Amino acid sequence: MHQLLENVFSRAFANPILDTRHDSAQFTVPIPAPDAGGNLINAGARLVPTRLAMTTDSYVVRPIFFPGGDIGSMAVHGTVNDLAMSGARPLYLSCGFIIEEGLPMETLWRVVCSMRDAAQKCAVQIITGDTKVVDKGKGDGLFINTTGIGIIEYDQTILPQNVLPGDAVLVSGDLGRHGMAIMAVREGLQFESSIESDSASVADAVLDLLRAGVEVHCLRDLTRGGLASALNEIAEAAGVRMAIDETQVPVREEIHAACEMLGLDPLHVANEGRFVAFVADKDSARALALLRRHAISANAATIGRVVEKSAPLVTLKSAIGATRILDMPSGEQLPRIC
Amino acid sequence: MHQLLENVFSRAFANPILDTRHDSAQFTVPIPAPDAGGNLINAGARLVPTRLAMTTDSYVVRPIFFPGGDIGSMAVHGTVNDLAMSGARPLYLSCGFIIEEGLPMETLWRVVCSMRDAAQKCAVQIITGDTKVVDKGKGDGLFINTTGIGIIEYDQTILPQNVLPGDAVLVSGDLGRHGMAIMAVREGLQFESSIESDSASVADAVLDLLRAGVEVHCLRDLTRGGLASALNEIAEAAGVRMAIDETQVPVREEIHAACEMLGLDPLHVANEGRFVAFVADKDSARALALLRRHAISANAATIGRVVEKSAPLVTLKSAIGATRILDMPSGEQLPRIC
Repeated sequence: MHQLLENVFSRAFANPILDTRHDSAQFTVPIPAPDAGGNLINAGARLVPTRLAMTTDSYVVRPIFFPGGDIGSMAVHGTVNDLAMSGARPLYLSCGFIIEEGLPMETLWRVVCSMRDAAQKCAVQIITGDTKVVDKGKGDGLFINTTGIGIIEYDQTILPQNVLPGDAVLVSGDLGRHGMAIMAVREGLQFESSIESDSASVADAVLDLLRAGVEVHCLRDLTRGGLASALNEIAEAAGVRMAIDETQVPVREEIHAACEMLGLDPLHVANEGRFVAFVADKDSARALALLRRHAISANAATIGRVVEKSAPLVTLKSAIGATRILDMPSGEQLPRIC
Repeated sequence: MHQLLENVFSRAFANPILDTRHDSAQFTVPIPAPDAGGNLINAGARLVPTRLAMTTDSYVVRPIFFPGGDIGSMAVHGTVNDLAMSGARPLYLSCGFIIEEGLPMETLWRVVCSMRDAAQKCAVQIITGDTKVVDKGKGDGLFINTTGIGIIEYDQTILPQNVLPGDAVLVSGDLGRHGMAIMAVREGLQFESSIESDSASVADAVLDLLRAGVEVHCLRDLTRGGLASALNEIAEAAGVRMAIDETQVPVREEIHAACEMLGLDPLHVANEGRFVAFVADKDSARALALLRRHAISANAATIGRVVEKSAPLVTLKSAIGATRILDMPSGEQLPRIC
């Protein structure tokens, strides 16, 4: 998938804005800048180009309904989170439905209502949509594309290339819940307590960091490929070595147990309401405190540090003090997780 | 489909911007207005909110390659045209691919290159993308979603509700080619001359009308359901009766022949490079002349007139002088045409 994206699309569509390594594209239109109080100035002198962000994702998750969410709420959260990863405040969504003939109308209605509720909670408006119906056997119930537009109101450029030696590496909460929730349903596994997806918007938590002037260098949501993928991609884009302390990475007991049973590494498992933040060292304690004020990131933790400019490398120090290399997950651990 | 859109989505997502009866959603961000010369002012006094437009479409057309185009070029043209129908200049596209396992890489590459070429020709940039892979038998080769952002630079509100008695009804060219091209390939039909899709951007032709100050009340591209659908939808939204002269509607000989053979009405057949324009009577001759300067709309014609505010009705006068009601196509004449 990684290779496919990199090769086919970057090669064909090469342009200054497209960057498939980032979660959303940024483009400028000349808009008045917000004043110190955060208000947009509608007349007057402080007129600078302001930035918008655009991101798109198709959702093909199976099953459509799972503990903690469904394809509809996830399609809103995922796209809202991708905008937040650019430091953008999410404003508008489009949605495109590809419906397989025979999908019960009640199912469609339930998904659409879930999208509506998620959008309301995230303060975004779904402003345009499209539906296509494909014949039975040519789809799989329901696929949803959501594309989002956000406004970048703070004067920070959040990009993997901005990551610097000394940066603190923060994760916004405990890892592995979305992937294991899906896995449990698909495989019909029973655990002592039921595992719920972490699918939710992280936009408010992210915008709080920016509003407070925390020097955020890079953000990345921990979806397909989990933390391991995100860290390796950023190490590669930034050309840095980073050192992660495994004992500091929050993972719930039941997720550890479930992963062990299935031979999975929680650092490779997908999340839908978690992100990693690279923050200037001087601001890292403040960033952690700000994140912990939000329910969605109440268990945020500092898990490591960027060590130096170097060949891309992510190292992981375990509980017994051994250090190993944290690799990219090889292949897709779990298909159709989002 | 029509009912599905109207009921499920309008009911769930109701908000002031969403209007599933229009081709794209308009939203404002405060941007400097263009001056008389069309330049955006980057500093100074003439600061008014300027409008952007957003539209989304998923493409599931079969076959993927057809005479005159393919799913890739079509995904660009269709979305560019939807923006143009709001009077917006298309700027940016996102693209989301849903790929069925086993799709040959050569096929993907050919489609992606076709998208790139179409985007270049339309002067839009593809700035962000996403791919998902679904297991064999759970998709159908390739589905593409494109979402577009455009800027509305002219101070006209183009909406079905703005259509007025007296308006001239113009079509931008001959009808029925896309639908019949797809039909011919699918059914393995041979006609004397091969029928090519009309898939192309109409944005330049539309923007020429606006630039010249032609009073355009409504625009609609003639895709699914063809001219008949578009006219009936607009008659309903505007609450008007319109009278169309069938002898003035341009349809090529071979399309007439093919339609007759298959028992189809060319006015119900989908197009991918045609639109209908409702224009103030005083400007209609000028509009026609402007459209005819563009290759894509060289065969534009005035086909009728809006008669009066009334219960929605579209009448059609035939060559022998008989008048009949032009109905909505019942059901989808040809599935997966776009």
